[in-house]
Amino acid sequence: MFEFDIQYRDGQARVATFQTPHGQVRTPMFMPVGTQGTVKGLSPQELIEIGSQMILGNTYHLMLRPGEQLVAAHGGLPGFTAYPGPFLTDSGGFQVMSLGHMRKITEEGVTFKSHLDGSLVSLTPERSIAVQEALGADVIMAFDECPPYPAERDYIRRSLERTARWLERCYSVKTREDQALFAIVQGGIDPDLRQLSLDLTLPFQTPGFAIGGLAVGESKEEMYPAVAFTAKRLPEGKPRYLMGVGHPEDLVAGIALGIDMFDCVYPTRTGRFGYALTDDGRLNMNGSAPRTQLQPLDPECDCYACRHYSRAYLAHLIRAEEMLAPRMLSLHNLRYLHRLVERARTAIMQGAFQAWAQAWAQRYFRGAVPGWFRQALATGAQVEIQTH
Amino acid sequence: MFEFDIQYRDGQARVATFQTPHGQVRTPMFMPVGTQGTVKGLSPQELIEIGSQMILGNTYHLMLRPGEQLVAAHGGLPGFTAYPGPFLTDSGGFQVMSLGHMRKITEEGVTFKSHLDGSLVSLTPERSIAVQEALGADVIMAFDECPPYPAERDYIRRSLERTARWLERCYSVKTREDQALFAIVQGGIDPDLRQLSLDLTLPFQTPGFAIGGLAVGESKEEMYPAVAFTAKRLPEGKPRYLMGVGHPEDLVAGIALGIDMFDCVYPTRTGRFGYALTDDGRLNMNGSAPRTQLQPLDPECDCYACRHYSRAYLAHLIRAEEMLAPRMLSLHNLRYLHRLVERARTAIMQGAFQAWAQAWAQRYFRGAVPGWFRQALATGAQVEIQTH
Repeated sequence: MFEFDIQYRDGQARVATFQTPHGQVRTPMFMPVGTQGTVKGLSPQELIEIGSQMILGNTYHLMLRPGEQLVAAHGGLPGFTAYPGPFLTDSGGFQVMSLGHMRKITEEGVTFKSHLDGSLVSLTPERSIAVQEALGADVIMAFDECPPYPAERDYIRRSLERTARWLERCYSVKTREDQALFAIVQGGIDPDLRQLSLDLTLPFQTPGFAIGGLAVGESKEEMYPAVAFTAKRLPEGKPRYLMGVGHPEDLVAGIALGIDMFDCVYPTRTGRFGYALTDDGRLNMNGSAPRTQLQPLDPECDCYACRHYSRAYLAHLIRAEEMLAPRMLSLHNLRYLHRLVERARTAIMQGAFQAWAQAWAQRYFRGAVPGWFRQALATGAQVEIQTH
Repeated sequence: MFEFDIQYRDGQARVATFQTPHGQVRTPMFMPVGTQGTVKGLSPQELIEIGSQMILGNTYHLMLRPGEQLVAAHGGLPGFTAYPGPFLTDSGGFQVMSLGHMRKITEEGVTFKSHLDGSLVSLTPERSIAVQEALGADVIMAFDECPPYPAERDYIRRSLERTARWLERCYSVKTREDQALFAIVQGGIDPDLRQLSLDLTLPFQTPGFAIGGLAVGESKEEMYPAVAFTAKRLPEGKPRYLMGVGHPEDLVAGIALGIDMFDCVYPTRTGRFGYALTDDGRLNMNGSAPRTQLQPLDPECDCYACRHYSRAYLAHLIRAEEMLAPRMLSLHNLRYLHRLVERARTAIMQGAFQAWAQAWAQRYFRGAVPGWFRQALATGAQVEIQTH
C-alpha cells in the first residue's frame, strides 16, 4: 500500500505510480477540487472520462456541512460522492485561515467562527485526523498553519515549529492503516526557514510530503526558488505535493522541479467565469468574437464540449446564463490540465521534457516566456538526485 | 416521412410510431423543453441515456438570441445543440403573449418589445415559418394566438378565426418538405368554440394537430372536458399534441384521452427548485428529513442520480447550492416522466391501461384520486374510434 514507484526520470522531473487503497494513480497528476463533496458541476462519470485520478475534499467544509459522520455513514467520500477512485483530504488548516472569522491560534489548535452560521468551532490536530478518518480519503494531510503573505520572519518560524509539533500529534492519534498521512513543509519563501521546516518534518518519514505556504500572494519570482529549494531536499522516493497550485504554467514549471501532485480550484472557477484553457493561453468566451465562431473551444482537445460544441454555441449558453455553460467549461478546463500532465508524462518517458516544455511555453506565452519559468526549467534540468 | 403508425389501442389511448427525418419516435411521448437551445443543465448524451426522443426548441427565444441565422449556420438545431435526434419548434406565438412587452396583435401579426433589450420585434405567420425553417426542426408549429384565461367568448372566437387565417398563411409560405407543419386547435374551454376551431383547422389536413390554449390558468375540471372533446374529433391517424402539459397526472389523463405528445418545463423547473417526482407524489428535497436518508430519491428509478446518490447527498448539494443538485434533480424528473410514458405504453400494449392508470393514481394521489382524473379515465375507456 502507498508504494511510490518512479519509472522514468528526466532531470528532476519524474513519472511514477502511486498505489492507494482505491486504485493506482500515475504522477505527475492534477487533482480536481471537490470542496463540498462535488467537483462543481461535474459527475463522477465525467471525471473518470476526462482522466481524473485523485479527487480532493475539504475537511473544513465537510465537517461543517454535512458533518463527517454523515459522510462516514455512506462509507466515506467514495460512497457519499459516488466517485469510486482515490481521494485526498486537506487538514482544514488552510481554510480556517482563509474562511474562518475571528480565528484564534494557540498551541492547542485553532478556534474560529463558522462562515456558515457563525457558530464557534475548534480544530486541533487530533480533531482534524478524526474528521479525516471519518471522511475516509486515501491520503490525509497533517494539520498545519499556512501563514499569510507577507508575514514576519519570526512569526513564520514560530508557526512552522508549532506545525511540526502538530504533525507529531497528528501522527500519534492516527489509527487507520489504509490512509497515508502526508506532512506539510512550511517556511514561506525564505530558504533558512524552509530548511528548518524540512529538518523538523523529514524525520517523521511520512509516505509523502507536501509543500505548503506558497501561492498565497508572493510573486512567481519569489515562489519558484522556494519550490526548487524544497523539492530537491524532499525524499526522492516519495510523492511531492505542491498544494493549491496551479495554473497551466505552474504545472509545467512544477513538474520540471520534481513535483508529482497538484490541486487548484482554478480550472473550474475560471470555467464558471467563462474562460477556457488552451495551449494558446486563456480564451475569454465572454467577448463578442466567439459568438460567431463555428470551431470548437480547442480543436486539439478530446473533451465532450470540444467534440460536440462550437464556440458560438458555448458563448450563447454563457449569454443566456444556461447551466450547461459553466459545466462544459469546467469539464474542458479540467480535461486541459489532465491532458497537460499526460503530455508532460509522455515527454518525460521519452527523455524530451525540456524540449517539450520549452515549445509549450513559447506558444502559451506567445513568445514572451517569463524569466521565472525559464529559470524553473533550467533548475529542473540539473540532475543531482538526492538519495535518502 | 412523417408516417404515424398506430400499433396498439386501448380505449382512446394508443401506442404509435412517428417517423421523422431525424429518426422514429414512439408515442405517447414527453418532450423535454430546450428553451434556449439546451434542456437546462443536461447534455444531449444524458437526454439520450434517459430515453428522451424529441426535444422542443422555442422560436421566440432563439430568434432573439442567438438569432436563427447562427443556428442555421450550424445546420440547424441538431448541429447547434449536438442533440442528434428530432426536434419540434413552437411558433413563438405563446411566448410573445407571455414574455413580450407592449404587444400589439393585428391581422398582420404581433409586434412586441423583446424581453432582452426592449427592441421592437414583429412576428407574423410568414416570419415564424421562416425562422422555424432556419432552425430546422422536424416538426414546426403554425403561428397562433393563445388567448389568456379567462377571456371574453367573443375575443376567443375572433382570435381563433384569425389563427385559422394565420394557419393558411403559414401553410402557403412553407417551403421545406422535411418539416411537418402541425396546426393548433384553439377555442378555450367552450365546446362550441373548440368545434369552430376544429371546423376551420381540420380541412388543412396537416400531418399532426395540437391542442392549444389549455393549461393557462383554468381548473383541471374545466380543462379535461375540453381535451376530451377536442381529441376525439381530431383525425385518428395523426399525432395529437397537448401543448405545454404536463405534470405526471396530466400525462396519464391525457394518454387516456388519446393524446400522443406532451411538453412542459415542469420537470426541469421543479427539479431546480429541489423537488423530485416519484410514484408517491412530489418529494420535497429542501426539507430536513432527506438530509439523513441514505436511500435513493426513488428506488424504482434507473437514472444516474438514483443509481449513484443518496437523498442525504442530494439534500447536501441543495443546501450547499452546488450545481450538481439542479442537474441531477432535472435528470431524475425527466427520466421519471419518460418512464411514466413507457409504462403507459406497455400497459396499452397489454390492453391493461385502465387498470394500470387507476393503480398508479391510487398511489400517486394517496387514495384521494380527484374527480377530474377519474372522469378523464372513464371518458378514455369509451371506445368510439373516429375514422377520417
